[in-house]
Amino acid sequence: MFVGCGSSHYLALYGAHLAQQLAKRPGAAVTASEAWLAPDVHLWPWSNPFVVAISRSGATTEVVRAVQVARQRGIPTLALTTNPDAPLVRECDASLVLDHVTERSVVMTQSFANLLLALQYLVALGAGTPAAHSFESRLPAVTQAVADVFPRLAEAAREVVGRGWRRYVFLGTGPLYPVACEARLKVQEMTQGKAHAFVTLEFRHGPLSLVDGETCVTILTTPATAALDRELAGEVAALGAQVVLVGPQVRAGGTTRSSPVTGVPLPEGLEDAHYAGLALPFLQVLALEQTLLLGKNPDTPRHLSHVVTLHDDQG
Amino acid sequence: MFVGCGSSHYLALYGAHLAQQLAKRPGAAVTASEAWLAPDVHLWPWSNPFVVAISRSGATTEVVRAVQVARQRGIPTLALTTNPDAPLVRECDASLVLDHVTERSVVMTQSFANLLLALQYLVALGAGTPAAHSFESRLPAVTQAVADVFPRLAEAAREVVGRGWRRYVFLGTGPLYPVACEARLKVQEMTQGKAHAFVTLEFRHGPLSLVDGETCVTILTTPATAALDRELAGEVAALGAQVVLVGPQVRAGGTTRSSPVTGVPLPEGLEDAHYAGLALPFLQVLALEQTLLLGKNPDTPRHLSHVVTLHDDQG
Repeated sequence: MFVGCGSSHYLALYGAHLAQQLAKRPGAAVTASEAWLAPDVHLWPWSNPFVVAISRSGATTEVVRAVQVARQRGIPTLALTTNPDAPLVRECDASLVLDHVTERSVVMTQSFANLLLALQYLVALGAGTPAAHSFESRLPAVTQAVADVFPRLAEAAREVVGRGWRRYVFLGTGPLYPVACEARLKVQEMTQGKAHAFVTLEFRHGPLSLVDGETCVTILTTPATAALDRELAGEVAALGAQVVLVGPQVRAGGTTRSSPVTGVPLPEGLEDAHYAGLALPFLQVLALEQTLLLGKNPDTPRHLSHVVTLHDDQG
Repeated sequence: MFVGCGSSHYLALYGAHLAQQLAKRPGAAVTASEAWLAPDVHLWPWSNPFVVAISRSGATTEVVRAVQVARQRGIPTLALTTNPDAPLVRECDASLVLDHVTERSVVMTQSFANLLLALQYLVALGAGTPAAHSFESRLPAVTQAVADVFPRLAEAAREVVGRGWRRYVFLGTGPLYPVACEARLKVQEMTQGKAHAFVTLEFRHGPLSLVDGETCVTILTTPATAALDRELAGEVAALGAQVVLVGPQVRAGGTTRSSPVTGVPLPEGLEDAHYAGLALPFLQVLALEQTLLLGKNPDTPRHLSHVVTLHDDQG
């Protein structure tokens, strides 16, 4: 069971998906507030539950309280954080602390990427299956690939943003859906503009009506979904939107009059879940550039603070 | 395991929550496309899995395919639909057909309410616990209460919409989160305007930056979360937004200069999960009135069709 808030909740979604895939055991992502408020619903029904609590600061009230109610029920807990002195580290049975991450921005960016990689190792090691070993053994190459493709992804993101879209939609399936959510949140919190995220094929079930000529739809594609993603890309482009396909099996190139789909290719031959880390730089740079284009400060969005602390008396 | 697309996916989220609460067994809501595309991830890890497939038309491609892959793995399946002649009914081991529902609108409204009630009975009967019996025994009274409060909820929704907000946010915790999502989708698909849904306390973890003087934030509150919801309502109202609190323990009344929070009270003394059905009419009328205010046709949003059918060759 994976708990977190905001960006860390999207990491939790990714962790739960990866756990089910690699360990063949049920995995669940629960927002920390819901795990804390309704532990009988969320923590009770599982056999041999294990809680991974994710928080950049390790001080988020809901995450600390979720861990406390888990421990009261005898459930083992592990903290994944960047702060060695955090309350979460003290409350958990064990912790994995990325203390080299010292992000000062209010929004999570480098910490998200680092926590995602740590989570990939953690789940793979915990699963201990041959599939998990195979996944884990390729992570160094994936990490190197991220560094290699970063300049090209950043350039592609700047080109997309430069066209001045007024609504962004991010689509992904399975392990790509959580990074689509993270991209949505980055655009939403840094620009206060229109941004949405959906499981790719869910887009036809209602949200498709959002599409217009000022919409940019980014589809995070993988080998498993390539044909379906291309079909949707064609359909959405025909409605007048800009479509960006990010993934393997994608041809590089920008929009022309005959092909309103921009391709941002990623290296071939990896597993679906690896592409979450590879697509992330494109998404983060896109959100950053859109924020700068609007003349806003990406590090300090309005109304937000570095750590969310509750002051109620329900603790 | 509950599968569906669009509004039916939100019903699936509700069903999974209720199953965990009443049966004390793990419940999962998976979008039908993901269950179909990655059955080894989503259908494999469970002991004694059982699939409830939800679809108004019973003809949605992804739902039919999800059921087919489940049956190939020997997993029992049950259809919840309104169409007795649907492919889904033929593919499933059993079915619950609400054939009195004959909705012609493209968007789901009366069918959502009817399927929600059917799902409540279905999960409670399947759970068979004393808690489930208690929940189920109160459903006739809850249904009567919906009819009783409908005129007042509709009036309250019309008053809120009449103030002309440009961004709607819907917040709910646990069993109220799926109906917040449904309200978001109704506004999004019918008006193509700004609408968002979050688990209530997640709102502080980024999306709070969206709030401005043109934002209307509806918080669906229950006895379990009343104090936290009121705290958030005060914080959001102080940022200049309109806040609407819907639920028990809420005082009736509209906005004044000293109290920028509108209260829409619901009957007291029910369980949290009952309030999903009670809050729904307020949300649906709000979406309808906002659509009419914009001069749009609520029954036929652009780009959408009554049934989503895939034409790929992956079937």
